[in-house]
Amino acid sequence: MKTTARKKTVKRAAGAAAKPRPRNAFYAQSGGVTAVINASAAGVIEAARKFPKHIGKVYAGRHGIIGALTEDLIDTSAEDPATIRALRHTPAGAFGSARFKLKGLEQNRAEYERLIEVFKAHDIGYFFYNGGNDSMDTALKVSQIGEALGYPVTCVGVPKTVDNDLPLTDCCPGFGSVAKYIAVSTREAALDVASMARTSTKVFVLEVMGRHAGWIAAAGGLAGRKADDAPQVILFPEIAFDKPAFLAKVKQSVERNGYCVIVVSEGTRYPDGRFLAEAGTKDAFGHTQLGGVGPVIAGMVKEELGYKYHWAVADYLQRAARHIASQVDVDQAYAVGKAAVEFAVKGHNAVMPAIIRQPGKAYRWKIEAVPLAEVANVEKTVPRHFITADGFGITAACRRYLEPLIAGEAYPPYVDGLPDYVRIKGKAVKRKLKTTYKV
Amino acid sequence: MKTTARKKTVKRAAGAAAKPRPRNAFYAQSGGVTAVINASAAGVIEAARKFPKHIGKVYAGRHGIIGALTEDLIDTSAEDPATIRALRHTPAGAFGSARFKLKGLEQNRAEYERLIEVFKAHDIGYFFYNGGNDSMDTALKVSQIGEALGYPVTCVGVPKTVDNDLPLTDCCPGFGSVAKYIAVSTREAALDVASMARTSTKVFVLEVMGRHAGWIAAAGGLAGRKADDAPQVILFPEIAFDKPAFLAKVKQSVERNGYCVIVVSEGTRYPDGRFLAEAGTKDAFGHTQLGGVGPVIAGMVKEELGYKYHWAVADYLQRAARHIASQVDVDQAYAVGKAAVEFAVKGHNAVMPAIIRQPGKAYRWKIEAVPLAEVANVEKTVPRHFITADGFGITAACRRYLEPLIAGEAYPPYVDGLPDYVRIKGKAVKRKLKTTYKV
Repeated sequence: MKTTARKKTVKRAAGAAAKPRPRNAFYAQSGGVTAVINASAAGVIEAARKFPKHIGKVYAGRHGIIGALTEDLIDTSAEDPATIRALRHTPAGAFGSARFKLKGLEQNRAEYERLIEVFKAHDIGYFFYNGGNDSMDTALKVSQIGEALGYPVTCVGVPKTVDNDLPLTDCCPGFGSVAKYIAVSTREAALDVASMARTSTKVFVLEVMGRHAGWIAAAGGLAGRKADDAPQVILFPEIAFDKPAFLAKVKQSVERNGYCVIVVSEGTRYPDGRFLAEAGTKDAFGHTQLGGVGPVIAGMVKEELGYKYHWAVADYLQRAARHIASQVDVDQAYAVGKAAVEFAVKGHNAVMPAIIRQPGKAYRWKIEAVPLAEVANVEKTVPRHFITADGFGITAACRRYLEPLIAGEAYPPYVDGLPDYVRIKGKAVKRKLKTTYKV
Repeated sequence: MKTTARKKTVKRAAGAAAKPRPRNAFYAQSGGVTAVINASAAGVIEAARKFPKHIGKVYAGRHGIIGALTEDLIDTSAEDPATIRALRHTPAGAFGSARFKLKGLEQNRAEYERLIEVFKAHDIGYFFYNGGNDSMDTALKVSQIGEALGYPVTCVGVPKTVDNDLPLTDCCPGFGSVAKYIAVSTREAALDVASMARTSTKVFVLEVMGRHAGWIAAAGGLAGRKADDAPQVILFPEIAFDKPAFLAKVKQSVERNGYCVIVVSEGTRYPDGRFLAEAGTKDAFGHTQLGGVGPVIAGMVKEELGYKYHWAVADYLQRAARHIASQVDVDQAYAVGKAAVEFAVKGHNAVMPAIIRQPGKAYRWKIEAVPLAEVANVEKTVPRHFITADGFGITAACRRYLEPLIAGEAYPPYVDGLPDYVRIKGKAVKRKLKTTYKV
């Protein structure tokens, strides 16, 4: 088994290649956090405790990979088991995340040498990296350079991204909960604007995340069931923005339904590739608007059609909304964490647990390992057949894909009217190196 | 009893003054809607069914008072009882609301004459008006002019406003649920930015409603429990914006905690009274920013302190968020609707059911009738002793006031991963008048 192979450079391990000896694991959260990334952490940590012959302690990087580079490791074994269980219902990154992409070995060999230095010092044999596209690339690099630098580490990527844009996996943990939040919020806000439209607001705009892929915007489409149900307009990054067609669609909706709800992806672009949010569009008052496509769209509607509008920008609220997380999403987030450990102890290296949708009418899924090399830096956008011909809605096929992902309400416990989210103690692992590293 | 008194002008009622004869009731939703205004509608309709000797049918105005003026009435008796029950868990205005303030009798006598014409035609003896300050004023006027125009109507206001700014009542139905949504969202987003702050976003800004009163902003303060917990800064309309003090507070929080969460009321103003959102403030890129105080504050932080930021504007999402409604709020919304009917059949006129907090440590409340004349057009803002000395937080007294209002999770039922909100049939009452009225 790969994971139990070791080299002479590993102290205390010489000659033990055939028989597993527990080695420590490093776990890190990377990139934008989600409502369920801590469920994956719980999956990794709880599963690791079931393989004491393979895995010693799980050390989490404080603020992701930066914790590894700076030898700032959190000893998860010092946390109460109840705390680890509670991570399942706690949003955001309990150990701290980082937007920090490792460069290639050629560009910054020092970074990798430092990683290996820290891994050696703490006898780390497993590397679990919980993130999106960039992070799968990092995990792949670490799996390769470990070998190159004489310290092989078993690397498993743990998928996480609200953008739902990783390939090979049917969906990405984190997405289902954002999708549920956006679908619920769109349905609720639509009822509001429908109530007000007779004398006041006629157009409501909800800006959602997804700079390159329109999966979250598509999820807004779940709010309606029938033709003319809100949202009447969805703007996808995958579809070049056609202003006259858009305005005609809004006008038609207001004239037919009395109001119009628009869900717009932050990544919506003009045909020439400029983001609407960055295109210097004027708002209703002639001022240049920047820093949100929602107000840009609202201003355009006001200026061209004269309708009274409201707009909302959900921003972090959408991806942190653990209070309305999808049960399927929580289950899958936990499952990929758990599977990552199981794959690692079975000797799989440079893989990612992927969620595989099973054929059949009822939604069933399983986990399979897929090679990181095929995942890293590949982006899965919304396919054209998931978007209606006019470019402003989702098709029945898209609905069939999305609907199971928002199933079930995984409510957190409440105390005094508020979700009882957990905080880790975050006990630091004693430093072993005299060297420091500046990031 | 006042409510059973009638004049010769009412057909079929002559000589029946001493003995109640059922007369119909008019119910309307007014102004901005809430997550629980339909619970009040359910309270009115279900209670009315328990007084068949007093109240015949409940007719709801389609789009509020406009439905009365245009004789566009919805027959609530044509709705399935299950639909009326489901209003308790359905946000926004099921019958349609209106932003339409009746003028004084002197300014527009025709409006009142038209109302009375419609009320007479449909034998309406009760007027239940579900709204905020302006609506209580309207209900008061109708109670006065009914008499003046020879058609007395028993008028009871049903309180509703997310702004929580009605006097005499301890709180306003609609507020508790927004407060819960904002407190939950602030807590969640704070965990997100805390995760990201090491390498990315350091300041998160959440813009909330409340143009004149900072109750909703104050509710954001419930997210934290200890000093230094998020939100570290709350900006109230009641406190003149002090830019240097604000920036110093943000800087201090980032330096001490690594990040800063700001909850800003849309009504935050400069000392000279200008709204920040309308003050032509430049964003980080030197562009004039308008249409949201959230981005204005974020831009200011970026420009002056250089911190990376994110901002969210919850807008309608906050007041429509029935999925995370407060159980106390839902109960109170229902109770004020029910009490309005009970007061009316007991002969109270020109009153509003108010929520009275009982003394004692445990939160208990009851309903009492208060005179509309003392409610109309009076605005209750956040008292100074509810705001910390520095103007950026809430005091323990404020927390004691707010906390019970967000207690309990009144989850709606779900189907296919989404809340199962009800839609009324909305069967129109047959028109009796040949005249029409243009609003």
